[in-house]
Amino acid sequence: MGTLIMTTQLAINGKRLWQSLMDLARIGATPKGGNCRLALTALDGQGRDLVTGWMREAGLTVRVDQVGNIFARRPGRDNSRPPVMTGSHIDTQPTGGKFDGCYGVMAGLEVMRTLNDAGVTTEAPLELAIWTNEEGSRFVPVMMGSGVFARKFPLEVALAARDAEGKSVADELKAIGYAGSEPVGGWPVDAYFEAHIEQGPILEHERKVVGVVTGSLGLRWYDVTVTGMEMHAGPTPMPVRRDALYAASFLLQAVIDIARAHPPHGRGTVGEIHAHPGSRNVIPGQVRLTVDLRHEDAQRLAEMDSQWRQVCQEVARRHNVQVEIKDVQHFPPTPFDPGLVGKVRESAARRGLPAMDIVTGAGHDAVYMASVAPTAMIFVPCKDGVSHNEIEDAKPEDLEAGCNVLLDAMVARAG
Amino acid sequence: MGTLIMTTQLAINGKRLWQSLMDLARIGATPKGGNCRLALTALDGQGRDLVTGWMREAGLTVRVDQVGNIFARRPGRDNSRPPVMTGSHIDTQPTGGKFDGCYGVMAGLEVMRTLNDAGVTTEAPLELAIWTNEEGSRFVPVMMGSGVFARKFPLEVALAARDAEGKSVADELKAIGYAGSEPVGGWPVDAYFEAHIEQGPILEHERKVVGVVTGSLGLRWYDVTVTGMEMHAGPTPMPVRRDALYAASFLLQAVIDIARAHPPHGRGTVGEIHAHPGSRNVIPGQVRLTVDLRHEDAQRLAEMDSQWRQVCQEVARRHNVQVEIKDVQHFPPTPFDPGLVGKVRESAARRGLPAMDIVTGAGHDAVYMASVAPTAMIFVPCKDGVSHNEIEDAKPEDLEAGCNVLLDAMVARAG
Repeated sequence: MGTLIMTTQLAINGKRLWQSLMDLARIGATPKGGNCRLALTALDGQGRDLVTGWMREAGLTVRVDQVGNIFARRPGRDNSRPPVMTGSHIDTQPTGGKFDGCYGVMAGLEVMRTLNDAGVTTEAPLELAIWTNEEGSRFVPVMMGSGVFARKFPLEVALAARDAEGKSVADELKAIGYAGSEPVGGWPVDAYFEAHIEQGPILEHERKVVGVVTGSLGLRWYDVTVTGMEMHAGPTPMPVRRDALYAASFLLQAVIDIARAHPPHGRGTVGEIHAHPGSRNVIPGQVRLTVDLRHEDAQRLAEMDSQWRQVCQEVARRHNVQVEIKDVQHFPPTPFDPGLVGKVRESAARRGLPAMDIVTGAGHDAVYMASVAPTAMIFVPCKDGVSHNEIEDAKPEDLEAGCNVLLDAMVARAG
Repeated sequence: MGTLIMTTQLAINGKRLWQSLMDLARIGATPKGGNCRLALTALDGQGRDLVTGWMREAGLTVRVDQVGNIFARRPGRDNSRPPVMTGSHIDTQPTGGKFDGCYGVMAGLEVMRTLNDAGVTTEAPLELAIWTNEEGSRFVPVMMGSGVFARKFPLEVALAARDAEGKSVADELKAIGYAGSEPVGGWPVDAYFEAHIEQGPILEHERKVVGVVTGSLGLRWYDVTVTGMEMHAGPTPMPVRRDALYAASFLLQAVIDIARAHPPHGRGTVGEIHAHPGSRNVIPGQVRLTVDLRHEDAQRLAEMDSQWRQVCQEVARRHNVQVEIKDVQHFPPTPFDPGLVGKVRESAARRGLPAMDIVTGAGHDAVYMASVAPTAMIFVPCKDGVSHNEIEDAKPEDLEAGCNVLLDAMVARAG
């Protein structure tokens, strides 16, 4: 029972974890208390320098691959075994917060530091990853580093991506000194854990400290164009109109209705809408909108997709407009590894932390990693469910709790 | 019965009218067959030069006032009487058509030419007006020339208006040689007639050639802001959302429902909508939209206004969002002069032209003129009800018919 005694005695240093988060947050700090550290900018470079410095101080061996992913290894007793990995990202949205991504990296670092302090060596080596450009605010594809690692798209596509000013990922990696020489991926990973703020309101609402993430929602994105007839608002009687925006209003409602008909994990969102010509006294002749449908279950996501297409046909017929649907993106639901998810659940229980199963609606590096290694995530609450926002906030005690669960789960897996 | 015989025998020259319209349309012609002759540009100056040349050839006396309105007088037998006036505008939308405005001016010119050919002198003098900047595409206020003439806003406001490049009306009038010396308005007008394409689909739909315009719709414009909570589309469950766009969809529908509940002349239009932050995977936290409500009856327009405000309150409460309404514009309905409207109706009947009463939903110089002189308008059909568009079109025989009605009505009024 030596292992059990060891893991229940170990505890991470919550103050040190918090301090590291606050120190990193000084790089690219924004006036409202957030962070602007866009991927591969000089500020991202400074953030990487700071964290890799801490990694080396913790005795970790740091490597950088060709897409700029950073890996910091802590040897195990048997270094022929593939590593138990954790990680996340430290790039941010233009007006992002201090915790999205950074928490996962700092929690992983704190796990290493805690094991150092306790003089514990695990059987398998441990690895801490910082993935390049998770946010995708400056360069697309998003989740770039983990995407190349998991063979979702080729390295060349990532390196050739350019920002709004025409600067390429390849050049910007060189400029900040993170164009590594190591091939991207292709080596075995025993398990991947990622700690993250929830970015949603469920844990806070349910008064839970730990979210045991069982998988990620599947997602379907559509671009929709409604075409009616552009006419003058004054002289055109109501019965003869072919008002594209009026027709679109029924599509807006259908997206919500469809999501609500698939509780609790159905989601439906129209985030963008543009009416043409966009003049106060002209009946819109064309409306473009984006649609985002999500569900954790592939079968039910397919039902939502089919209902959505049917609604589009009905609205087109009923309102005498054309409705065109373009499929933009389809990620199937990704269930995480039941064994690893179980370890997270058990760790929370053993520490007496209020926990609940949850799915992630947002994309994470973990979702890509799930295709190349057994994967699980640990969520902690964020204030009001708000993220991608300078006011993003989280409680030190919750961050500490989640980090302890990460510690337990990694040690349990690594032996 | 000499007068009756004279008016039934007179007929305008449809080919000459059409040719004048086509000649004017060559100035600022666009590739798709439309016109771009923005107010007070060099092209507008060329158009004015062409038409005033025709006015002088027709023996009319041309004056220009301080806001650039052009008046061309044909003497009567009693020149102490105030003139019977007709007119419209020759400026266009950026991608406008050949008939909107130009038809009213060319029809007036054709009336003068027809009377010249027939050697007829009316008792009261006749006057043909070209109003400055009716469209408002380059300078606001719209309907600028007639607005100053009718004391709706001061001359100084009009002259100080600047376009997007910072050029003022005062300077641009000088640049094209139409900064006249005559004071604007303040002299009596016996009656004002304006012939115009309908800019709506009713006449075509009802297979009528002449619209007897009984007045203009009253109008209320609002800017509406719906404020909910901006959150991530993925992690946020449906029940906790405060989706500003979803709430707005009910406002969009209410605008249409309210207009339909006040047939046949109720109108409701949302022409602009903007969702913030406008990102595919973010629930809109704020939506701005414009609302345009119209009715010919002041009492019913007030009812529509009150229903609209009530709907906004209900939607705010039901969807847990804020709905702010800003009043942007309020034009009360303007009934035209029953005596003059009767003359238009009689002229159409006497010529055996299929005619119907109609209201104008669009703004016209005639709407301002109605406050300083008895006023009436004559509509003719335009193809598919389309205007403010390069494909705006009208049939030569309909334009001829409307011009004959204008001739009869003016001669009947002037004696």
